[in-house]
Amino acid sequence: MRAISGAQDDVGSVGEFGLIARVSAALDTTEAVLLGPGDDAAVVAAPDGRVVASTDQLLEHRHFRRDWSSAEDVGHKAAARACSDIAAMGAVPTAVLVALATPGDVPLTWTDGLVTGLRDECRALGAAVVGGDVTAADTVAVVVTALGDLQGRPPVTLAGAAVGDVVAYVGRLGWAAAGLAVLGRGFRSPAQVVGAHRRPEPPYAQGPHAALAGATAMTDVSDGLVADLGHLADASSVQIALDSVLLPVPNRLTEVAAALNVDPRDWVLHGGDDYALVATFPAGSTLPADWVRIGVVREGAGVAIDGVTVAPRGHEHFR
Amino acid sequence: MRAISGAQDDVGSVGEFGLIARVSAALDTTEAVLLGPGDDAAVVAAPDGRVVASTDQLLEHRHFRRDWSSAEDVGHKAAARACSDIAAMGAVPTAVLVALATPGDVPLTWTDGLVTGLRDECRALGAAVVGGDVTAADTVAVVVTALGDLQGRPPVTLAGAAVGDVVAYVGRLGWAAAGLAVLGRGFRSPAQVVGAHRRPEPPYAQGPHAALAGATAMTDVSDGLVADLGHLADASSVQIALDSVLLPVPNRLTEVAAALNVDPRDWVLHGGDDYALVATFPAGSTLPADWVRIGVVREGAGVAIDGVTVAPRGHEHFR
Repeated sequence: MRAISGAQDDVGSVGEFGLIARVSAALDTTEAVLLGPGDDAAVVAAPDGRVVASTDQLLEHRHFRRDWSSAEDVGHKAAARACSDIAAMGAVPTAVLVALATPGDVPLTWTDGLVTGLRDECRALGAAVVGGDVTAADTVAVVVTALGDLQGRPPVTLAGAAVGDVVAYVGRLGWAAAGLAVLGRGFRSPAQVVGAHRRPEPPYAQGPHAALAGATAMTDVSDGLVADLGHLADASSVQIALDSVLLPVPNRLTEVAAALNVDPRDWVLHGGDDYALVATFPAGSTLPADWVRIGVVREGAGVAIDGVTVAPRGHEHFR
Repeated sequence: MRAISGAQDDVGSVGEFGLIARVSAALDTTEAVLLGPGDDAAVVAAPDGRVVASTDQLLEHRHFRRDWSSAEDVGHKAAARACSDIAAMGAVPTAVLVALATPGDVPLTWTDGLVTGLRDECRALGAAVVGGDVTAADTVAVVVTALGDLQGRPPVTLAGAAVGDVVAYVGRLGWAAAGLAVLGRGFRSPAQVVGAHRRPEPPYAQGPHAALAGATAMTDVSDGLVADLGHLADASSVQIALDSVLLPVPNRLTEVAAALNVDPRDWVLHGGDDYALVATFPAGSTLPADWVRIGVVREGAGVAIDGVTVAPRGHEHFR
């Protein structure tokens, strides 16, 4: 095996075990990591006797382009997607495992950047990368499994919304979709929306806050507000009735949409990848800080806006 | 969305959420599954306050071919690879999460078979598929993350081997490599070796048995006996000294090798994918039933056979 070497090299030049050694050296740890990378498996603390787990895929050409996002961006986003699912249960992410498939000609600077992004997104959360797997492939694929801690609380599922509950969200809606639209037209700005696509900022801590505030159901907006609320409505056997007045389009999105000659409302209602949290709370609840009321839970099915049922238009694979 | 329908259809005909519904309907559960598939994340019991976790990739063309292995085989193997890592820590697998990337033109009969294989491999272990993710891709990729329970015991790591310890293994060595060689020459038999490649039978329960018997270090043979013992030797800063007399080549492998005009010893020493367990035990230990002594731990580095250091020849990606 050739030595672990300089930045001009590619993954193939150091090989599987060289890459693993390089990745492991870049990672850090936390108190919850009882045994970190390098063994057959990791061991992570699960203080309340339960572990929350979710897995999520980020594929080159499908979910990102290496010319549109930096390696760090891809790392941040891959960790964010899986950790957002943990937050959406009302839990705190503790650890992630990463399966990386990559062509041998990908530069080590790229995989270094990916690992930096993964590590730093986890670090900001108090979590750590505890293990993974590396294999050769024709295109880059990053599959992240996130583990989390419910801190003694029951999980906030999709199924608990009750008629009369208030619907509220926290985070951004439509920004990542606007950024993707901009990139798709060949532009690289405005930075705010392009950045939202490249590196989402899920409001992770709001998941536990919502749980503590009595949220009856919760999910993260990965596919689009209507699509994801549709899953919540289905699981809870209710209708989510949104009020469009409570869902104003941010000025920035209106400007960008005008330049692209599209309707910014589509981004807000159907854009994914911002990882806002949306939840239902018992009527009369005091919403946690920063949460915005957008509707109520009614008898019925699906998602309605101003009384009219809306079909999901979030991204659907295989279509 | 088109209805979930008959066996003539492909993944694209039911779409992402149709496929997820179909997969979820085929799964079963266990007492450890506190919240199963269908929500943002799963919740799994971690009775001793810790969770063991490992992730592993099985890629079409790299790790399997759809014309060499059935969908069920691929499911069994994908679950086996990750769960074997859990056993190698001395733990019991409790749950797996599955990330599936697949072209839309893969028949639903194939994904059904994959899920059956995953479910049945887990079921035999007392584990369950608790979650996953589905996306479109150009080739099939199955990434399994396995979770496990140490039942109050310390993990058996790679790093605990001490000079004077006995080296022993349990399971099969070289059978899967022989099967792969047979398939590579265009044959489909003998069934025993081809079957070993298609559907490994890791001796999962022997992991906890070894831990209870005082194993000081352990790993599973996924890359090859010499390669994987090399990792153990490195982590423990010792030499693993094998005695070739204690590693006889099974007659079946000798016969197959003769037909292919190759050396069957290479399969035994360097063949991966059988997921035997290999461990070190304090000198004088009573080995657990079925474990076979194959050498001792000495001062030094790497793996030696009859006193001669041997380089790993297990599969190395990117080469």
